[in-house]
Amino acid sequence: MAEGLLVVVSGPSGCGKGTICKELLKRNKDMSISISATTRKPRKGEVDGENYFFLTEEIFKSMINKNEFLEYAHVHGNFYGTPKKFVLEKIENGENVFLEIDVQGALQIKEIYPDGVFIFILPPSMEELKNRIIKRGTESEDDIKRRYKNAFEEVKYIKKYDYLVINDKVIEAVEKIESIISAEKCSVDRQSKLINKILS
Amino acid sequence: MAEGLLVVVSGPSGCGKGTICKELLKRNKDMSISISATTRKPRKGEVDGENYFFLTEEIFKSMINKNEFLEYAHVHGNFYGTPKKFVLEKIENGENVFLEIDVQGALQIKEIYPDGVFIFILPPSMEELKNRIIKRGTESEDDIKRRYKNAFEEVKYIKKYDYLVINDKVIEAVEKIESIISAEKCSVDRQSKLINKILS
Repeated sequence: MAEGLLVVVSGPSGCGKGTICKELLKRNKDMSISISATTRKPRKGEVDGENYFFLTEEIFKSMINKNEFLEYAHVHGNFYGTPKKFVLEKIENGENVFLEIDVQGALQIKEIYPDGVFIFILPPSMEELKNRIIKRGTESEDDIKRRYKNAFEEVKYIKKYDYLVINDKVIEAVEKIESIISAEKCSVDRQSKLINKILS
Repeated sequence: MAEGLLVVVSGPSGCGKGTICKELLKRNKDMSISISATTRKPRKGEVDGENYFFLTEEIFKSMINKNEFLEYAHVHGNFYGTPKKFVLEKIENGENVFLEIDVQGALQIKEIYPDGVFIFILPPSMEELKNRIIKRGTESEDDIKRRYKNAFEEVKYIKKYDYLVINDKVIEAVEKIESIISAEKCSVDRQSKLINKILS
């Protein structure tokens, strides 16, 4: 069986990557989403193995030492990371796995798993990005400024990605990502097993 | 405006590339097909500039000398070729151009225009390829054998292509090629102008 794809969907805060991934999962029943591990306490209603894998700091750190993460970060006193085994097992079973992540995490993953499909999402303009961050309304002015500044830092890394999808209308962005997945599966590089079989 | 794509659809005789290209053109009104030049005489009903550009051998040869072909070949005493200007002007105008061609021609084009999207078409098996060549019923047994032998020679070049599309059901192959076109337009490499604008 052909291997599945790891589809890394990334971009600055406010680019709409969360909405896009939700829609992608709704439309593509054969795809799954990567579940992160974290050391933070579960919030009310959060289910272990569904929202997150909730781990103790001891276990998390021992997994770091054993290189068992595709990426991890330490944010506001808690660890967050993507367990390698969970994702790679699905891929080996031919499943496609989505991973929605910030730019720093995506670049870490690329080091470890360059075969992933790396997609950067941006709104039609940086002005629009600012509007979207403001519209969330959940953040203080300082937060908004910080997020906007980070966004400018993050776009510098677009060229490390394979694809840039402009998120003007969500459904169009989703369709573009579906096309990317379909095209990647036709790529000669990803069909070497089949090709070697044909050639033999 | 973004440049159009040159989509080179290629594969051995009997792979179904002709049928696929016809269907692609029917479904994608914004795409055009490259028109070949030839020194052979027009057949009844053939229109200059529509079926072929009909040229004298003198003009054809002078165009060869001026490197005005993306590819050309000498077959059964006649020249056939793809005029560079015709294709590149459309691409510069943002149009996508299909080019249906044999493997030798595709490889020539790749030398001159590596930015093209190179797609290899194969039937689900080499056995099926043989059946399709036989089913045409227009060829002698020698012709069939020759075509089948050529097909085996040609598949050796798959790895020079970007994509391999298995033509089991025509409509699925067509949809895959449409996905490839859509994905290629999202590729970071092809959006460097846009990206430089964002970064500036």
